[in-house]
Amino acid sequence: MHSKIRLAFEKMVGCSNIITQDLNNYNRDWMNKYVGQSQLVLTPQTSEHVSQILKYCNQNQLKVVPQSGNTGLVGGSVPINDEIVISMRKMNKIYEFDQNSAIITSESGVILQNLNDYLFEYKYQMPWDLGARGSCLLGGNISTNAGGLNVVKHGLLRNYIMGLEVVLPNGKILNLMNKNRKDNTGTDLKQLFIGSEGTLGIITKANVLCIPIPQEKKVFFLELQSFQDVIKVLQKVKKNEQVLAFEFMEGRILKKNKNRHSQNTLPFQFDDNKYYVLIEIAGQQLNVDQFSIEMMEFTQEIIINQNEKEAQFLWKLREEIAESMGKMGYVLKYDVSIPPDKFEWLVNQVYPQREGPFHVYYGHVGDGNVHINIVFESLEHLHKEEDKIELKLFGLVKSLGGSISAEHGIGQHKRKYMELQKGKDVLECLYSIKKLFDPNSIMNPNKLL
Amino acid sequence: MHSKIRLAFEKMVGCSNIITQDLNNYNRDWMNKYVGQSQLVLTPQTSEHVSQILKYCNQNQLKVVPQSGNTGLVGGSVPINDEIVISMRKMNKIYEFDQNSAIITSESGVILQNLNDYLFEYKYQMPWDLGARGSCLLGGNISTNAGGLNVVKHGLLRNYIMGLEVVLPNGKILNLMNKNRKDNTGTDLKQLFIGSEGTLGIITKANVLCIPIPQEKKVFFLELQSFQDVIKVLQKVKKNEQVLAFEFMEGRILKKNKNRHSQNTLPFQFDDNKYYVLIEIAGQQLNVDQFSIEMMEFTQEIIINQNEKEAQFLWKLREEIAESMGKMGYVLKYDVSIPPDKFEWLVNQVYPQREGPFHVYYGHVGDGNVHINIVFESLEHLHKEEDKIELKLFGLVKSLGGSISAEHGIGQHKRKYMELQKGKDVLECLYSIKKLFDPNSIMNPNKLL
Repeated sequence: MHSKIRLAFEKMVGCSNIITQDLNNYNRDWMNKYVGQSQLVLTPQTSEHVSQILKYCNQNQLKVVPQSGNTGLVGGSVPINDEIVISMRKMNKIYEFDQNSAIITSESGVILQNLNDYLFEYKYQMPWDLGARGSCLLGGNISTNAGGLNVVKHGLLRNYIMGLEVVLPNGKILNLMNKNRKDNTGTDLKQLFIGSEGTLGIITKANVLCIPIPQEKKVFFLELQSFQDVIKVLQKVKKNEQVLAFEFMEGRILKKNKNRHSQNTLPFQFDDNKYYVLIEIAGQQLNVDQFSIEMMEFTQEIIINQNEKEAQFLWKLREEIAESMGKMGYVLKYDVSIPPDKFEWLVNQVYPQREGPFHVYYGHVGDGNVHINIVFESLEHLHKEEDKIELKLFGLVKSLGGSISAEHGIGQHKRKYMELQKGKDVLECLYSIKKLFDPNSIMNPNKLL
Repeated sequence: MHSKIRLAFEKMVGCSNIITQDLNNYNRDWMNKYVGQSQLVLTPQTSEHVSQILKYCNQNQLKVVPQSGNTGLVGGSVPINDEIVISMRKMNKIYEFDQNSAIITSESGVILQNLNDYLFEYKYQMPWDLGARGSCLLGGNISTNAGGLNVVKHGLLRNYIMGLEVVLPNGKILNLMNKNRKDNTGTDLKQLFIGSEGTLGIITKANVLCIPIPQEKKVFFLELQSFQDVIKVLQKVKKNEQVLAFEFMEGRILKKNKNRHSQNTLPFQFDDNKYYVLIEIAGQQLNVDQFSIEMMEFTQEIIINQNEKEAQFLWKLREEIAESMGKMGYVLKYDVSIPPDKFEWLVNQVYPQREGPFHVYYGHVGDGNVHINIVFESLEHLHKEEDKIELKLFGLVKSLGGSISAEHGIGQHKRKYMELQKGKDVLECLYSIKKLFDPNSIMNPNKLL
């Protein structure tokens, strides 16, 4: 790095906020799939730091990658070449929680779990939940409009962002903070930064509407005879406001994972040709008996957790799928939205008769969000198949009016499919907006657009 | 109107979609407060009609006002001068309701109530509700991000808009339609058009996530001794997910309205110095007894409806306030968001000791949204006081971190306060976005920005 540049940054943020060695954790994503060559990481501690950094980079056409917890799946938060990484992890102040409005105000570098810990004494929690809760940061969650496990009940992250502070590439600090649930004063500028994957500016602060911790929870695990039955159960419970999660799994993966657990803890024997659903209900005064009776319309094979440990075990059967697939070989992971009743059809189109490499589909069927994982024996085989599968899969998804990314985002991975997803006219608009905010294209280059 | 222009429109949309006489209903808002001088109303029947109209107007620098139900309160949907009115009421096709995703697909000119009627057989309803439900149109609701009575429970309209079709001023039809609950593919362009009051484009179609009709409802009407008690009740029930509405009224207006009803139907005698709250709970398996017991921590004076008629009557006491104020004289209406515990303080700042003209505050305290109505004996007096009150009121609102418009929008009325609300930097961004989409400023001129 040019010593002039180094000196400029030293002046702005001080030596203690400049890292030039051991940058591996900043250059690689956690899957080791995407690797960049940044030589410089900055760790600003205030919005003014971020402002000065971006202003300088913009004037000198230095490209930057904003980085939060670096827990994404699409290579959006690591550099591709030698971009400067702006790590937000030191901006981790929680300012306050307002009990009247249920809105928390915080800097963007706070770990999601820390926000939940802070809220615990008020009996509130953050409105979204992710597996990465222990390491992902608020700003990264907002920049990617993160999905997660509770969307069925609580809706999207976007709905809970009441206000933001954003630093633009030109260094301007946009004050879009807001602690009002209702603020109907025209075009809602902050929406542009939610889910834009750090391509328009850097989120430095946020106001988030929180939700009360539910008084009771109960997990139901169902064995069903057909995928049509899964859809029938979904239709039945969609009107139930207490449904917090509705997850679907194929028997073929649960059976394969059986030996991970002692026989007597398993809810069922699991069958290759059967279909399994995990439903969690939460709220005040759950009527567990009535919910059970409703489920019995569809199956007699129902397990209900008796305590917290059992709930965790039933969830584990669902959550260990991704990891267990990874242990079988090299995995292509897809995350698409389509009409829920088309899940089985889609997979059958890609692999007629379910032939081809071992693959399963599972996920948030309640949101129309299916994860498809395909295992290959070698990386070469995977790379050989990747484009072919994606062209077919994403083409089908598009023909169903679906989305090629339900929650994982675009990042580096799906950038080349943006025109397929959006169409030319919409893409043109998105480019104009990008150019308006970031005319020198310094923000997270070669991601998303 | 130039005969060349008339001929051009005839060619585009046909004579039956051009109105040049009896334009009173298009030129005036329903309060008769804002009056324009349009000579031409077009009633397009397809998105292609809208596209051709806007393309022609853009090329010829003809200014247009998109108009839906014309039920707004801030003069946003009527012309100011001789703009061409584009009435959307003929684009009223409902395409389908998808029971798996609970998403309805419709043109934008459908009356809100008609959408509810259509959804009734599926036991679903639209996620927002307004007094104007019988005449307001879907597209107008979306363009103004309409608020309403159920925001406490269901959140903002914005959260339920899954997809849009929008015609840009240059005539391009942007296909942002989407029937997926989750679609995380970068910057969410459709958000720009929600709440932009028709200044960036015209919404022609929408996908809206619907909600199940609640199985049970119950209305509680409480008499409280102080405004602090109102806040205490609010804090108590904020964690209750079944709270559909939380409305506050002053005794001074309920007492004034007593003679509108026969004595024995009234829940209380009403007292100038007391405070009244209407809470509606809704959902599955309401526990009315427990809710009553919780309320008794704060007051013994509680009325609960025994049937639908009584529920309607209790709601009437709340809903008739605006109309009854109108009958007393000329009314200045404000609609601001501030921290709920500051409602009383705010009014006392504007009128110390509650002196000055007769005024009350009431509204959606559960959302931090207070309506302040001030009655004047003459229009002259009102006009004389208006600026003075607004400078003081909006200044205080701003100092509390509030919003000068919680739900009514900006339109013509509050345009001059946009800089106070937004600050220069944000306003500059909004102007750039306006210029990007509407470089010739043909869309709804002199509104919002």
